[in-house]
Amino acid sequence: MRIKMTVAYDGTDFVGWQRQSRGRSVQGELEHAMRRLGYVGSVQGAGRTDAGVHARGQVASVECDLALPPEKLLYALNNLLPRDIRLLDVEQMVGDFHARFSPSLKEYRYFLLPGATPDPLLSRYAWFAPKLADFSLAEDSAEILVGEHNFRSFCAKSSVVKSYVRTLYVAEFKQAKPENVPEVLYHRAAKGEVYMLRFVGNGFIYKMVRLMVGALVKVGQGKLTQADFAAYLENPSEQPPAPAAPAQGLYLWQLQYLPNGAACDSRGR
Amino acid sequence: MRIKMTVAYDGTDFVGWQRQSRGRSVQGELEHAMRRLGYVGSVQGAGRTDAGVHARGQVASVECDLALPPEKLLYALNNLLPRDIRLLDVEQMVGDFHARFSPSLKEYRYFLLPGATPDPLLSRYAWFAPKLADFSLAEDSAEILVGEHNFRSFCAKSSVVKSYVRTLYVAEFKQAKPENVPEVLYHRAAKGEVYMLRFVGNGFIYKMVRLMVGALVKVGQGKLTQADFAAYLENPSEQPPAPAAPAQGLYLWQLQYLPNGAACDSRGR
Repeated sequence: MRIKMTVAYDGTDFVGWQRQSRGRSVQGELEHAMRRLGYVGSVQGAGRTDAGVHARGQVASVECDLALPPEKLLYALNNLLPRDIRLLDVEQMVGDFHARFSPSLKEYRYFLLPGATPDPLLSRYAWFAPKLADFSLAEDSAEILVGEHNFRSFCAKSSVVKSYVRTLYVAEFKQAKPENVPEVLYHRAAKGEVYMLRFVGNGFIYKMVRLMVGALVKVGQGKLTQADFAAYLENPSEQPPAPAAPAQGLYLWQLQYLPNGAACDSRGR
Repeated sequence: MRIKMTVAYDGTDFVGWQRQSRGRSVQGELEHAMRRLGYVGSVQGAGRTDAGVHARGQVASVECDLALPPEKLLYALNNLLPRDIRLLDVEQMVGDFHARFSPSLKEYRYFLLPGATPDPLLSRYAWFAPKLADFSLAEDSAEILVGEHNFRSFCAKSSVVKSYVRTLYVAEFKQAKPENVPEVLYHRAAKGEVYMLRFVGNGFIYKMVRLMVGALVKVGQGKLTQADFAAYLENPSEQPPAPAAPAQGLYLWQLQYLPNGAACDSRGR
């Protein structure tokens, strides 16, 4: 029987979503909790978030013989999981649903507070970025990313994928309203200090979001022209235009699964 | 020359304020940053917070030959300190000010969300406590703690101090308004989910605040009567009435230094 889980976590103390030979992973903790209930097998996640990257609505799937109804499984697992992971929902799926391979749209959000006074209690949850000279230029430049593009210039050099072409349906950079931020940032958003980069797409390559954010911040700082930014998208390069933005500002916000057979490239990330 | 520093930190990743043979300490990080500016010597803190306990307004003092004006020292140190520590203020003091030994009033606050839905991003900053059956009973019981008492029943068994007598000027348990909580909890406080225990006193013994909180929560849960709670204060015991509340809800909120010579017991804690 296929189970779909919706998972929130604080990525700070994980090596990332994916199980690795050393260190705590979200996948490993979920599998460990499942084993304590007697299930053996692996938990597959939709997005393989990096160390320090958070999730508000990661989706995972697991194949198991379910002796418990979903709402009881939700309760039992939350009692076994560490405090930095929380299951939000458990659902029984019909058909061959797979968190990673079923076609989906993924939404990532990145939160930064340019020029704001840092609070040590927020340091894990946003980027206290330098002041931006020109917000509207950064906002306009984000729109250039919408559409189908070769994102080679916005991937880690080491990333090996069959194709660097992905489609972004939303790419925006704007001041965040309180209702659109994680609750730890609510107060700062109410004061107008939080900026949000929001990306919705059919697939993201390793480091892609953080490299797009890094480049857009450089545009906003006046250190990269909009024309040069656009040229990186036109002319795929192995050298990104700016360093990746730090992990702590990034959240895998939500996933939307499409009807099977929908034309959508959904390589996990 | 004597310097007074006001320091905020996220206690999660520290062994506590105090330097220890192993692990990161807040004191150690501050001294390390000072050494990078060429100062050698120790930094003395007013309250020796435990692992996981936060500070909004810890005070530290240091004796050094200051080549930089205070505002430049503040800036330089904040650039050298890790992201989970932030200096809020640096002041040059006249006379023999000492963060730990100069007479002061300390304020600790403890935040809990009884029965609320946990958020992994808040798990380091408050206690998601069980539901309380009777808030008003817990509120009333907190008032019993005000005044001069022997707090032996509310200290770690291992704590060795000359006297267990301390004076509390404020001891209250009430629903917290947003302006009285750390900003990470602002949203929850606005929804009325956050309860605050506030203690102002001339000195606190090891684990004293967390043991008082643990006992008051037990009263609110209906597992300890108000009369039994009061009896622990009347009849000092080595066995506390309830386990200590978890570290993550506790904040050293602020210190108020009194004119020298004021009658005040100020053993650090």
